Amino acid sequence: METMTKNVSVEKSKTSKISEVDFNNLSFGSVYTDHMLVCDFVNGAWQTPKVVPYQPITLEPSAKIFHYGQSIFEGMKAYKDENGDAWLFRPLENFKRLNKSAKRLAIPELPEAYFMEGLTTLLQVEKDWIPQNPGSSLYVRPFILASGTGFHASPADEYKFIIACAPSGAYFSGKVKVLIEENYSRAANGGVGYAKAGGNYAGQFYPTQLAIEKGYNQVIWTDDNTHEYIEEAGAMNIFVRINDTLITGPTSDRILDGITRKSILEIAEDQGIATEVRKITVSEVVEAAKNGSLKEMFGAGTAAVVSPIAGFGYQGTDYELPELDNSYATQLKTYITDIQYNRTEDKFGWRYPVE
Amino acid sequence: METMTKNVSVEKSKTSKISEVDFNNLSFGSVYTDHMLVCDFVNGAWQTPKVVPYQPITLEPSAKIFHYGQSIFEGMKAYKDENGDAWLFRPLENFKRLNKSAKRLAIPELPEAYFMEGLTTLLQVEKDWIPQNPGSSLYVRPFILASGTGFHASPADEYKFIIACAPSGAYFSGKVKVLIEENYSRAANGGVGYAKAGGNYAGQFYPTQLAIEKGYNQVIWTDDNTHEYIEEAGAMNIFVRINDTLITGPTSDRILDGITRKSILEIAEDQGIATEVRKITVSEVVEAAKNGSLKEMFGAGTAAVVSPIAGFGYQGTDYELPELDNSYATQLKTYITDIQYNRTEDKFGWRYPVE
Repeated sequence: METMTKNVSVEKSKTSKISEVDFNNLSFGSVYTDHMLVCDFVNGAWQTPKVVPYQPITLEPSAKIFHYGQSIFEGMKAYKDENGDAWLFRPLENFKRLNKSAKRLAIPELPEAYFMEGLTTLLQVEKDWIPQNPGSSLYVRPFILASGTGFHASPADEYKFIIACAPSGAYFSGKVKVLIEENYSRAANGGVGYAKAGGNYAGQFYPTQLAIEKGYNQVIWTDDNTHEYIEEAGAMNIFVRINDTLITGPTSDRILDGITRKSILEIAEDQGIATEVRKITVSEVVEAAKNGSLKEMFGAGTAAVVSPIAGFGYQGTDYELPELDNSYATQLKTYITDIQYNRTEDKFGWRYPVE
Repeated sequence: METMTKNVSVEKSKTSKISEVDFNNLSFGSVYTDHMLVCDFVNGAWQTPKVVPYQPITLEPSAKIFHYGQSIFEGMKAYKDENGDAWLFRPLENFKRLNKSAKRLAIPELPEAYFMEGLTTLLQVEKDWIPQNPGSSLYVRPFILASGTGFHASPADEYKFIIACAPSGAYFSGKVKVLIEENYSRAANGGVGYAKAGGNYAGQFYPTQLAIEKGYNQVIWTDDNTHEYIEEAGAMNIFVRINDTLITGPTSDRILDGITRKSILEIAEDQGIATEVRKITVSEVVEAAKNGSLKEMFGAGTAAVVSPIAGFGYQGTDYELPELDNSYATQLKTYITDIQYNRTEDKFGWRYPVE
């Protein structure tokens, strides 16, 4: 059966896998829904998006995605409220960032209608897959890959924009212990660090494995030149609370302009928390940990939401963070998830109905 | 029909596309041979490599190659001499570098026998595809991609090692005009610049497009911190001749350890050309261009071989390089290709028979 919603056609799957999924024990991003959105760039133009049954992707061995890492992605979540209504959180921000990433990776920019109608059409079809369990949501992964072929290191002439969805639980279980990186780096000045480019992630795997072997969960990346400035955590932006001030680094061409990051900043300011957006040095964080003024650190990102950091390692020393009764992390996470799950007034206009 | 050569099985294609190819008008890397090598990493181990008919690759939408850029590659060429015998050039160097890249990208390292026997078995099967025309060769592209799935930013648990081949002509036609980059960067200190990681290439496309729009062919990358040091050209290492000394930058974690680069250095030293491996500043190159001591610049890489540079742009000014009767570029290119095509004695032991 094929139906058409404005620009998006829908071909329904004949069967559903939903009954096989244990929604009470969801890991992160490892089971996928029955459908996906596919939109091809061929002959110089993005073609009509289609919702189709979730299915493998077939590409030539010479497809540029395999050789030159020409791919970008976004991460979003769909939430279901107590009435069974479904919501997205600031999806236009994801769309804008996707096109920022596209430009930097020499991928043709996508029309807004294709992204937004494709997204909402897919989510209407997959509405039953949006979990209602506390802490769970439907993780939504828009991505673009270079399907055009050739062993010449130059942009592809064909691309695929796809949205796939995975009902998901927490990205991290429990508090996170991080290692402040002194040798490896995530991004160069003038590089692609601000883009959600695939290659930014693969480059983090090995240093992160080394950190995991030492007992940490994640690396806190520092600038590649001096390793003196705290940048981000790869899958999260970083916030530091010194005394009662909440500090995060400024975005740059090395640091991702996180949607959760900027939402947290707005909420904090609205709630009367003093915030500073400025460069953070490793030495001030170490000093603050030593003198007790370092109250909290947490990561912020779509996948990890607000992820409290239990402690950090630096130059062979581990620093513990205190357990707070009324942490900013808890306060901010509660508020942002209350907006996301439609449990509170949406004073910022961030909630977006899936309808 | 399936045969077995030591570790590698061979399934022959029923038909051949070779009669459709015009070997007198080959572009670079855009037509592919009848077979490819495939070797899967599953259940914690690399499986037996297979030569199979050239065919599309089918992957799950959640395959990590699409999301996290976890891929690496190598570039090699197979050459045919006047007797019809086929040769590779220092293939073990490609194997070693593939595994260096694999380690940095958290990809399981490949056994040497699988690489070398896979490569030679494939090339025996494809021997008729190795061009005998002057300046042409069979471009050989080994690559590894993350086929394992998941929307969690962590290394895949499954991979595909593939070798595909493309009979190819010159990478650049004629002399190359380059732009010395002042804003964008290719690699970070402590990053993956020394690896042949897919993501290193996609990040160059947009700045290269901007350079092409200004009338240049390639970007010369500079260090991301000061943009004062000349690094490499993305698809080539860079050599600069000032007076009669041939200079190239030292390899680092930002610069690819090019096999053509180090071969050129050995040949130059053997031929009595004074060489220096040291950091090269943009200002000394500009100064040398102004005072006439800059005699030559050229790129060196497997695809581009030795690619003379006609001139460079920097800060809005174009600098022309002189036309030399007896350039180092010509002398070195002649000698290295004479080794590659078995037209001269192989005093360095670099030629490797396909047998």
